[in-house]
Amino acid sequence: MSDTAVVGLDVGGTSTRAAALTLDGVRLGVGRAGGGNPTSHGAERAAAELLAALRAALADVDPTRVRAGVIGLAGAGRLLADPQGRAAFDRAWADAGLRCPYAVHGDALVAYASGTAAPDGTVLIAGTGAIAAQVRDLRLDRTADGHGWLLGDAGSGFWLGREAVRRLLTDLDRAQPPGDLARQVLAELTGTTEVAARPRATADAVVQAVTRRPPVELARLAPLVATAARDGEPTGLALVAEAAALLAESVSRIRPPGATDPVVLGGGLLTGDTPLAAAVRLELARRWPDAPLRSAGDGAAAAAWLAARDLPEVTDPATLHTLLVPPA
Amino acid sequence: MSDTAVVGLDVGGTSTRAAALTLDGVRLGVGRAGGGNPTSHGAERAAAELLAALRAALADVDPTRVRAGVIGLAGAGRLLADPQGRAAFDRAWADAGLRCPYAVHGDALVAYASGTAAPDGTVLIAGTGAIAAQVRDLRLDRTADGHGWLLGDAGSGFWLGREAVRRLLTDLDRAQPPGDLARQVLAELTGTTEVAARPRATADAVVQAVTRRPPVELARLAPLVATAARDGEPTGLALVAEAAALLAESVSRIRPPGATDPVVLGGGLLTGDTPLAAAVRLELARRWPDAPLRSAGDGAAAAAWLAARDLPEVTDPATLHTLLVPPA
Repeated sequence: MSDTAVVGLDVGGTSTRAAALTLDGVRLGVGRAGGGNPTSHGAERAAAELLAALRAALADVDPTRVRAGVIGLAGAGRLLADPQGRAAFDRAWADAGLRCPYAVHGDALVAYASGTAAPDGTVLIAGTGAIAAQVRDLRLDRTADGHGWLLGDAGSGFWLGREAVRRLLTDLDRAQPPGDLARQVLAELTGTTEVAARPRATADAVVQAVTRRPPVELARLAPLVATAARDGEPTGLALVAEAAALLAESVSRIRPPGATDPVVLGGGLLTGDTPLAAAVRLELARRWPDAPLRSAGDGAAAAAWLAARDLPEVTDPATLHTLLVPPA
Repeated sequence: MSDTAVVGLDVGGTSTRAAALTLDGVRLGVGRAGGGNPTSHGAERAAAELLAALRAALADVDPTRVRAGVIGLAGAGRLLADPQGRAAFDRAWADAGLRCPYAVHGDALVAYASGTAAPDGTVLIAGTGAIAAQVRDLRLDRTADGHGWLLGDAGSGFWLGREAVRRLLTDLDRAQPPGDLARQVLAELTGTTEVAARPRATADAVVQAVTRRPPVELARLAPLVATAARDGEPTGLALVAEAAALLAESVSRIRPPGATDPVVLGGGLLTGDTPLAAAVRLELARRWPDAPLRSAGDGAAAAAWLAARDLPEVTDPATLHTLLVPPA
């Protein structure tokens, strides 16, 4: 077993994951803590979750063995530009007993690296929001969308939820009985599938139920769309097909036609066996028939790999990837 | 000159207009005051603007001559359901010296009546928001859209502004020089037409400029789209065509195919000689070739006509319409 260890962290909005690995792939420890996105939670809180995850991963590891670390997080650029936030992360790093330096990368790069070791390629992420990014020499290059729910996030969970409500409102405007998906959206929002004698009253109740909460919570309805699509429900299928086309369009803004480097699919809507992941794979295969399509996997391990590949003793980063990052 | 007078009020978000007319169409007085929408301004403030407009219109009129009145306003149903709001309007009415009863109608019905005397038809309104409504026997029947900017208002001023920003962001994502309309949107939002060396930085600045303000203020950008379309700019033309198709689709949710009763176009985007009005007229003529298309006109006069037509001495409301409501 290699004496050298590396640490990787994947800091997300709902959880923070840490992994400590040796250079031959032995998993020395893993850790998990609460959401630590510094943009949404504040840098102090994010640093506290970071420390908790690090301590768990390093419980049985002499921290002086750790020679490199990478923290992947959304809004990495904003953290790096904020001296106080950076200081909070520095303190957490030192409090975990670590003496080596660390680098901070965007979550999109870490998602990319969790799916492939190829230095150049594309990553497409769809969860509550949606963003596509080009990767050049394992650095984020141009991005497309990621503009937030008001102006972008086309094909995201927010988009699916909003469009499902819009289809329901169209049924109500037309005084048509809502379809299967629309009925489920209606029940989720109003607690009943019943439509008032004046469908406008039900439409107004739907609009009020949505506007009482932050808009981004429309993403909570996305699983209803996925389930409907899986069951062959026409509106669910149509929305998933439309979302897949929008996501592929975002990719086409930054990825050249005919490109053959890999595309990694990440985010809750595109990892695993979801209807949207299947539809996106078809769209991408149609536009880039010679590109390998990969799923994002273990972000903490990918972050550890990104840290390790800069060590002088690492001469074959691709082989190291197969040792450190389990296939998704 | 008829001794009988009627009063009409058109209460909008930015202004309140009042008109006092005799039954043979003599204009006894007009009044204007600030925005009085009770939903956005509160019923007390709305009632104060109502009183100011009424006093101006009645400055030279013995108020006991006034035999009927109609107040048209957005959110009429909410006002009628609110005893305090209703009491504030009652007080304003009495403070103006009026002893006759008054009725409250939705602004969509008043807009309809400002364009036609036909008891049945359709009204389509596009300003900051967008709504279509069927009129049956001069009462609002079913409506379509009007669901607000988050879930609806398809083809509205908000929609045009948002889509114009989205086209700009697409240009920036693609690292293409922004088109003419996109450049104007960029200047309006960031104060410069310059794109940063990393176009992503400009895209982020655009998103931040929009999200600093209430979303509905995206409608401020709609005039840029209209001007671009008038100048033949491709993105402006495309957005106007798309908005017109969406507005016509909203109408189709409630108006039967083959209907031949009139369609009245109202709201700041559809009255007057705007590119969107022209495009909507074409869309509607394609779908309902035998329907007369009218423009909404003087709302206060239309409200006065709605008040007058219930008086026992009025036997021919259509002729009365030609006397009281000037053609748009």
